[in-house]
Formats: sequence, structure tokens, C-alpha cells
Amino acid sequence: MTTLRIAGGRYLTPEMVVETGDVLVDRGTGKIISVGEVEDGEETLDATGCVVMPGLVNAHTHAAMTLLRGYADDEPLESWLREHVWPAEAQLTAEDIRAGTDLALCEMIRSGTTAFCDMYFEEPAVAAAVEEAGLRALLGHGIVTVGKDEEGVAAELEEGLGFAREYRNASTEESVEGESWVRTACMPHSLTTVAEDAIEECVAAAKDLDVPIHYHANETEGEVEPIVSERGIRPLEYADDRGLLGDRALLAHGVHLDDREISLLAERGTGVVHCPASNMKLASGMAPIQDLLDAGVTVGLGTDGAASNNDLDLFDELRDAAMVGKVAADDASAVAAPDVLEMATRGGAELLGFDSGRIEPGRSADLAVVDFSASHLTPVHDLVSHLVYAARGSDVRHTICNGEVLMRDRELTTLDEDAIRTEAQKRAMGLAKRAESG
Amino acid sequence: MTTLRIAGGRYLTPEMVVETGDVLVDRGTGKIISVGEVEDGEETLDATGCVVMPGLVNAHTHAAMTLLRGYADDEPLESWLREHVWPAEAQLTAEDIRAGTDLALCEMIRSGTTAFCDMYFEEPAVAAAVEEAGLRALLGHGIVTVGKDEEGVAAELEEGLGFAREYRNASTEESVEGESWVRTACMPHSLTTVAEDAIEECVAAAKDLDVPIHYHANETEGEVEPIVSERGIRPLEYADDRGLLGDRALLAHGVHLDDREISLLAERGTGVVHCPASNMKLASGMAPIQDLLDAGVTVGLGTDGAASNNDLDLFDELRDAAMVGKVAADDASAVAAPDVLEMATRGGAELLGFDSGRIEPGRSADLAVVDFSASHLTPVHDLVSHLVYAARGSDVRHTICNGEVLMRDRELTTLDEDAIRTEAQKRAMGLAKRAESG
Repeated sequence: MTTLRIAGGRYLTPEMVVETGDVLVDRGTGKIISVGEVEDGEETLDATGCVVMPGLVNAHTHAAMTLLRGYADDEPLESWLREHVWPAEAQLTAEDIRAGTDLALCEMIRSGTTAFCDMYFEEPAVAAAVEEAGLRALLGHGIVTVGKDEEGVAAELEEGLGFAREYRNASTEESVEGESWVRTACMPHSLTTVAEDAIEECVAAAKDLDVPIHYHANETEGEVEPIVSERGIRPLEYADDRGLLGDRALLAHGVHLDDREISLLAERGTGVVHCPASNMKLASGMAPIQDLLDAGVTVGLGTDGAASNNDLDLFDELRDAAMVGKVAADDASAVAAPDVLEMATRGGAELLGFDSGRIEPGRSADLAVVDFSASHLTPVHDLVSHLVYAARGSDVRHTICNGEVLMRDRELTTLDEDAIRTEAQKRAMGLAKRAESG
Repeated sequence: MTTLRIAGGRYLTPEMVVETGDVLVDRGTGKIISVGEVEDGEETLDATGCVVMPGLVNAHTHAAMTLLRGYADDEPLESWLREHVWPAEAQLTAEDIRAGTDLALCEMIRSGTTAFCDMYFEEPAVAAAVEEAGLRALLGHGIVTVGKDEEGVAAELEEGLGFAREYRNASTEESVEGESWVRTACMPHSLTTVAEDAIEECVAAAKDLDVPIHYHANETEGEVEPIVSERGIRPLEYADDRGLLGDRALLAHGVHLDDREISLLAERGTGVVHCPASNMKLASGMAPIQDLLDAGVTVGLGTDGAASNNDLDLFDELRDAAMVGKVAADDASAVAAPDVLEMATRGGAELLGFDSGRIEPGRSADLAVVDFSASHLTPVHDLVSHLVYAARGSDVRHTICNGEVLMRDRELTTLDEDAIRTEAQKRAMGLAKRAESG
């Protein structure tokens, strides 16, 4: 057993208070041993002038979309999807997905993210990338049935549910130790892109495999309207009828929700992943986050894909969530800094089913060490405020996941960033070329 | 005459296109000599892998409010001002203002800002700080008459207009060369905090001194309503009646504007400084930026003070302006990246009356050199998109103002940042203590 002492700084408690003290980590089990006044470690990681916080959880993304970062900005949503993003995605190979995911992993580790939830294609390539990088992830194939014939739907379900079955490693805390940190979920893409009976198959498979279920819902008005007009009920009432709500379900976006839907989410224990930057950039709207918090819904934060963000730095989402939450609520006291910080740590970890997100003995040692020796983080009246409103990904000095140091003094330890950047650039250019001629 | 060649990279043209080439600067005059294929310089600044862009212009801030960064977040606007910010500001000394401004200058140089507009108190201390740092600034004392007796109003006007008179250096391009880069403006605080006759005195003084006039307007609903109910006209109709509109006028915020007011701004040539982060954080609302652009109004970008932001990194405002502009317009194609970049460079420079904001021969050499060798700026489909949506202040490698290198390879050359941070921390703690006991 090797122990690592993160020493000389301060740390964020589960009560969202910053205390002076160290964090001692067991690198064998990947767990936190003690916090505050701790024993010496066999190894030391300097945290002088820093705040140790739980590693951030990016609870909704499409990692390999880094290849499409800045590919088609400032387009109306429909033409963005139909003329640019979908044609490009149709050209993606497993090698492209691997290259884009590797790039996303570099960016996430650099900005203090230690766990993420990915919905995309070619997920075995994503799983391999995650294992090599050493992050924690909940992965799933985004199952789409719209536009497919019977055979196509069967193949899509087999690919999506097959991945969840094959890569499902463990869903209980005990069996995670020393194993892969990849877990799987069933991920029907959305309420409008997956047929009713295919949704039911996904729900049954998730139950059978004992894995979470993740999907897009109520992101745009244009997604709500057809369900209301066709079925005479709100989308989340439809979701509830199909078994898509429940305490293992997490939906992305939830921008357009009425009071009944918010109550349903609270009653069923279903989580919402808030993606404020993507919702602004695609003009989808502003999610009623304070209402969700008031109702007791667990909220996580996500970047969504890099094409609608355009980065994977969750410190941006911390700031965006607080700011857009206030405008949406017409109240400067809404969606306060500690609530936002909780979404990005404990909230996301709970939704993904990981035992991280809180700095306390026995929890997974998934940590970000944020350096406060910068002008934009001076003076210090309130460290929690600074983490939300003033810090950025580039202030993260070290990133630790499962007790392993993935970034030390801004240097990545598990990934060859230069090679990954070169490969991503090459693959992105090839992809754009094929999409334009295809 | 010394020449400086910024070599090996690319540069942003006034047409918002990125070209490969160098920028040659005359350090004697502080002007750009040539761009693209240029002659050798006596000195060289490496820009390999970088994009040289015009230095950013922070067109509305209260620089010394860095001392109140994170001091009272997540409070409703009224109690934020009355119970926290105003009591703290009442305790500010000239030494505090100097310390807070020095800190702001470090932060601005670090994030590629080369010019700013400051409305605050003790402006001679701000002018001294600006001269030492080597930035360009338009400075003014924020004149407030509300709550003051006749004598108090006279003293306030004397201080505010006296500063504009005394520190007014030059307002024509010819006479700026080799002189101070500090200019002044008359700055009546807002339409609701300055009495009608005092506004008229400010307007007359601005005309007499041939300086701009700058004020807050239409920031919140609560600021619009009293003018409408008392006078039966919209705030900018009132402003127009008092002579506050015109092509030397720039107003901050302009969140709540009706069509008539937008037309008035366009007709009079009055500029608007958009402060998207502050407007979100204080739940003031979302400014109709696409409507202003469509009407032909010159728009600049500002951070506002650090207490309502909480940083002075204009790269955040670039992203915020594009994103919130889309939500406000309910259109993902609104407030596009090149428009936003223009606001933060040429737009702001024009509003402040500086000859910068464009990289072309003869213009002031106020430049930010942005390093693109980072994962979050990979791959490159569109460099302009990356400058707006993905780059952050920490990607700025060098900052140049008036031909002088103020930051080289992330090291400040004119300011002692460690000493400034220590002093700011000390003064901020003293200020908070006095405000709480005062």
C-alpha cells in the first residue's frame, strides 16, 4: 500500500466549507484515508496556496465531438444539425472516435474533471481510451431508431444494449476496487428519436442489467411540441408511462419543463443534467434550475459536446449555471455558488453512480487541486465564490482519480498530449473533408 | 527608433479573418508599421503557434472593485448594493483604490486587455496606476448627486469635472504620440442617481472639454420604471432631452430598451457597452444585442466591476456575449463570433476614442498574442470561433500596448504582481473589517 499526502493547502468539505488541512490517500484502494490533520504519506503532492476539491463530474457529454469544435458555429439549430453535424457524424470511424475521445480526456484532466458520462457511437473505443487515461466514466451507445427500418432498429438495439451488457463491469461499490472504472448505461437518444417499443426494450434491458438509463429530454420547444400534440401529454408524462423515470434514470437538459414535470422528477427520484452553455449556444433556452433544486431534484452539470460549447472545461459550466440560473429565475440570489459546486461534484457523482464527489474518509480519491496564487483569484473573501465565479480550468494544478495522479503541476502523466493533439487535428481535417464531399 | 517583429504566427485582419504572417511594430511611435510579409525587426517576439489579435478593450469597468471580488455574492440586487457594496465603497481610501486598480491591471494585462474605461472614485490614483502599467484608459469620476445637499453636489461636480479637466491630455490622435495614454471623460453615474441640472452641467463640461460622456442607463427594470412614471417618457428619451445622447456618448448596459430607444441610439451615434456577465449575475436581464447591431449601433464589451462578474477576463465576455445574445434573440445564429470579436476590439476602441482595435499599418500597436497549442483549442476548423468560444485569458502569451511588451511569455514586465497581490489582499481585508464595523 502506497499513501499519498496532498499537503500544505486547504480542502472543500462536503458542507461546502473550505478548511485548512491535508488529504491522505490510499493509492492501493484509491480511497481517501483521512482529511485535516493527517499522518505522513509515503509520497507527497504539494498543495501550498491551493484548495483541494472533489474532481468535477461532467454528467453529460459526447466526448469525441471535440473533433467538431468550432466546425459550424452560429447556425440555426436545424441547419446546424441537418447540414453540418449529422453529415459529419455519419462519417465518423472508430479511429476518429478514439482520437476525439483522447483529446477530450486531455482537456477534462487539465480542467479538473475526473468522471464523465458519454453518449455516443463506437463506445468500445471510448472505453479503451478511458481505461488508458485513468478517469471514471459511465458510457453508453446513443440508440436512435428514427429513419431506420426494422432490421436497422434491431441492429441499433443490439449494438447499444450489447455494449451495455458486455462492458458492464460492476454496479456495486465493493466490486469496483482494483477493477475498471468504466460502467455502462442504456442510452436511448431521446423521446423523439427513439420509437416507443425500442424505448421499452431499453428500459427492460437497464432493469435486467441493473444499469442506469440516460437520454435527452425537453431540450428545445421543438422537441416538446410534437409529443404534446400527438399524445396530449407532456414529454415527461410520456417518459413516466414508458418507465423512463426512476431513481436510476438521468436525463440531459430539461430546459422546457412545467410544474407537473418537475414534481414527477422529484417523486420518481430522476436526475437532471443541466448543460447551460449548450442551451445558450443553441438558443434552446434557460432551464428552471432553482425550481428543480427547490423541488428536491438531484441536478448534475454537463458540458454537452464540444460542438455546442465549445470546450469541456466544467469551470465554465459552474459560472454559467450560477449566472443563467439567476436570469432564468429573475433573482440574483438564485442558484447560489455552493449549490452549483454541489451539482458539479456530489450531484453528478450520485447520478452516475460513483462513490466520489465528496472529500471524506472512505470516498474515492477523485480530486482537483486548484491553485489560488493568481491575480484573478485575489483577494480572498470567499473561496467557494472564487471556485464558481472566478476560477477556470487552467487554475487546476493537479488532478487525481482513484488515487492516481493524472496531472501533476499541469503535466499529464497518463496521456501523450502532443501526439493526441496531432492525431485529432489530422482526423478532424479528414472528417470535414469527407463530410463536405459525402 | 526600435522595431519589434512579432514573428512566426498568424494575425487577425480588420475583416475578422486570420492570415499567416508577422506584425512589425515601431516602438518609438507605438504604431504598427506593416503586417504579413514584413522586414526584420531589431527585436523579435516569438508567436509560433499563436494568433496575434488586437488587444481587447474593456469598455466599462470599476477597476478597483477587484477588492470586493466575491465579497457578497448571490444576494438580491438591492441588498447587495445597500447592505454590502455601498457600505464597503464608503470606506475606500485613495490607497485602497490604487491597490485595487493595480490588481485589476495585472489581471487585464494577463488576459490580453490593453485599454479600458474606468468609472470610479479617487481617479488620480487610477491615472497614476495606469501610467505605471502602460495600458490605455479613459478615466472618469462617477458623479453621484442623489442624497447630497447643495454643497455636497457642488463638491461632487467639482471633483468629477475637475478631474476630467485636469487629467484631460489630448483628444486628437496627433497629440497623443509620446504622451500619456490616459484620457478623461465626464461621467454622471446614471439617469437616476444624478439630478437633472447636474446632468446638464456634465453635458456642458464634456462639450467644453471636448471629452466623451459616459453613464449607466437602462440596466434594470427598477431603473427604467421611475423615469417612465415620473416623466412619461422612456429613459433614453429623457437622456436625449438632456443632451446625453450624441456621438461622444457611451452608455453602459442598455439591457431594457424599447424600439424607439434603439432607434434613438442609432440616430444619435451613441454607443452601448454590453456587460453580459454582470447583467446575468445581478439578474438584470439580457440586452437585445442583435437588435442593436441590426440598427447599426456601435457596441463595446465590458466586464463591469469584479464584484458582479467576478473577474476581468474579457475572453469570458466574448463567450458570454455570443451565448446570451442567442438566448435573448431566440436564435442560434444571432450575435455571431465575428461580431462579438469586433465589439471587444474595434467597437470598444471607437467608443473610447482610441486608434487601436485593428491590426493594420498606422494603427496603435495594442496587441494580444494568443497561444493555440492547447487541447481545448484543438482541432482548428475556425480560429475566429476559437477566439470567442474556446480561448480564455490564460491562453494569452504576450500582451503589447503602444508597442511596449507588458507581458512576455506570461511574465508581467511593468508590474510587480506578487507585491500587488499581497497589498490587495491586505487592503481588502482591512476594507471588509471597516465596512462591517462602520
